Amino acid sequence: MSLVRLAPRLICLMIIALGAALLHATSPFAQSDPLPSWNDTASKAAIVSFVEKVTGQGSPDFVPENERIAVFDNDGTLWVEHPMYTQLAFALDRVKALAPQHPEWKETQPFKAVLEGDMKTLAASGEKGLMELIMTTHAGMTSGDFQKVVTDWLASARDPKFKRPYTELVYQPMIELLAYLRANGFKTFIVSGGGIEFMRPWAEKVYGVPPEQVIGSSIKTEFRMQDDTPTLFRLPEINFIDDKAGKPVGINQQIGRRPIAAFGNSDGDLEMLQWTTMAGGPARLGVLIHHTDAEREYAYDRETEFGRLDKALDAASIAGWTVVDMKADWKQVFKD
Amino acid sequence: MSLVRLAPRLICLMIIALGAALLHATSPFAQSDPLPSWNDTASKAAIVSFVEKVTGQGSPDFVPENERIAVFDNDGTLWVEHPMYTQLAFALDRVKALAPQHPEWKETQPFKAVLEGDMKTLAASGEKGLMELIMTTHAGMTSGDFQKVVTDWLASARDPKFKRPYTELVYQPMIELLAYLRANGFKTFIVSGGGIEFMRPWAEKVYGVPPEQVIGSSIKTEFRMQDDTPTLFRLPEINFIDDKAGKPVGINQQIGRRPIAAFGNSDGDLEMLQWTTMAGGPARLGVLIHHTDAEREYAYDRETEFGRLDKALDAASIAGWTVVDMKADWKQVFKD
Repeated sequence: MSLVRLAPRLICLMIIALGAALLHATSPFAQSDPLPSWNDTASKAAIVSFVEKVTGQGSPDFVPENERIAVFDNDGTLWVEHPMYTQLAFALDRVKALAPQHPEWKETQPFKAVLEGDMKTLAASGEKGLMELIMTTHAGMTSGDFQKVVTDWLASARDPKFKRPYTELVYQPMIELLAYLRANGFKTFIVSGGGIEFMRPWAEKVYGVPPEQVIGSSIKTEFRMQDDTPTLFRLPEINFIDDKAGKPVGINQQIGRRPIAAFGNSDGDLEMLQWTTMAGGPARLGVLIHHTDAEREYAYDRETEFGRLDKALDAASIAGWTVVDMKADWKQVFKD
Repeated sequence: MSLVRLAPRLICLMIIALGAALLHATSPFAQSDPLPSWNDTASKAAIVSFVEKVTGQGSPDFVPENERIAVFDNDGTLWVEHPMYTQLAFALDRVKALAPQHPEWKETQPFKAVLEGDMKTLAASGEKGLMELIMTTHAGMTSGDFQKVVTDWLASARDPKFKRPYTELVYQPMIELLAYLRANGFKTFIVSGGGIEFMRPWAEKVYGVPPEQVIGSSIKTEFRMQDDTPTLFRLPEINFIDDKAGKPVGINQQIGRRPIAAFGNSDGDLEMLQWTTMAGGPARLGVLIHHTDAEREYAYDRETEFGRLDKALDAASIAGWTVVDMKADWKQVFKD
């Protein structure tokens, strides 16, 4: 057969090949490992096996795409929470930044303790003192202004141990996991005890989680028309605490369906994992990140102020949750 | 040229044509009218022009897909709200259904009025009476149980005027509009004064709006472990009223970004339209559905108990919102 006669067939084959390549592109992980920062241990196997079960056509555990909801705690699950929650570091820095406008803070607790770096006295001020700090630094401005304050702070603040921006101290294996789940038709939500408006300004860029998929604690806001411009003003009053038994409430309020996978790292996530995995029925996944890596990050569980993992660790073995051993299961903790 | 020699070219052309058809399928409205139930009036033109402005590559008003948020009121905007809100009809029916277990209701207001069909006395019981009705019929059970009660009621209840299930009394032009926006990369949200858990059981099927995109009023819920089964129990206490100045608050709480298009029909939507359209910057769309069609539906605005449109109608001309004249702008109100 002459080349001239072959040409149409070749073009035709090329078009077919191109079509196949385009179709294939919708399943980007078909060939390569979707979780390269995870060692090939039982934790990774449990996660991959769950995803295959709920996505496999004909699988008895198959879940339609619109019901594939996965929820992730933030502090200690997606990013570092030691030596203190990042939002607390933000509040302390805000007190210092605002101090010149509040000379009275030099003599008023808990502000005095913050300005003097006296963490012992600050801790002794308890929940009441902490709440006062939060309200002073988080309220009294519009939502738009608060968003700007958070964004500016994150651009310049550095973690004391790693000397890096906080938004770089996110766990690379979890970033891969978020992407892996989304590539498999999951909608990924953050469900954090942290402030909802503290997370939203950067969660989309850093985690690929849009604002409408961020759930968190909040203060009350009030609609106000200011010079014909509508604003939402942040009031010094708690609206909702998205922690412990509050997490299932927050999930139901904002998502309205029960997740099929939940990822946490502390007792604050216990009820969220129960709500997700103990409803009976098909396969569900509960995962706890266990901080076991003093060298690359931190090692803590039952005895810590931030991210205590005690009751939930006991519950994990009974409920069959996967406990990720950070040191053994993660090839890499942060992006280089 | 012989047929044998032509064959490969023909197959090739067919494959190219098939490929083009498949590509074309991603833009289903390119050829046909996406809004067939809308007459070709100024309202339709304003909506289509807005969508083209914010989606057109290179348009000065271009909005990236992740920021294309559209919010819709429900009662009177997506479905019928006369002769009374459907959720109120539900509450009245629930009182009748539960009455055998509450013999004391025969002598206690506002229940007595409901059981006797005495709407005048019921109305006189005011907000306090109404709240008592809602709490009695909406609380005291788990979220799962409430969902079942709502679903069962909607399956059998019929609208008194049209003798059809309430979920069939949704406006066909608005169903087309929801689909049109989604086909143009919008995320569509419901933002209703109605109960969030009253809407979620059917909003996905009827409107294509998933539970996580439904915002509404709510009562408080509490996480409870019952015989090792986690539940959310509905308490007789208001959590949030998603109406008037509450709508921007609810939008910010659950979406976390400002919508670029808002659709309402009453003064309850005024602040939502202000919040959406009065932020300055690029093109924004505010739309009010004006009930002008006594023959096919209802005609009401400034003088009605349900869905009063007064202040928002005055504001529309100043703010440049599109006022849809139901009688003139809609070819069809309901699906046949």
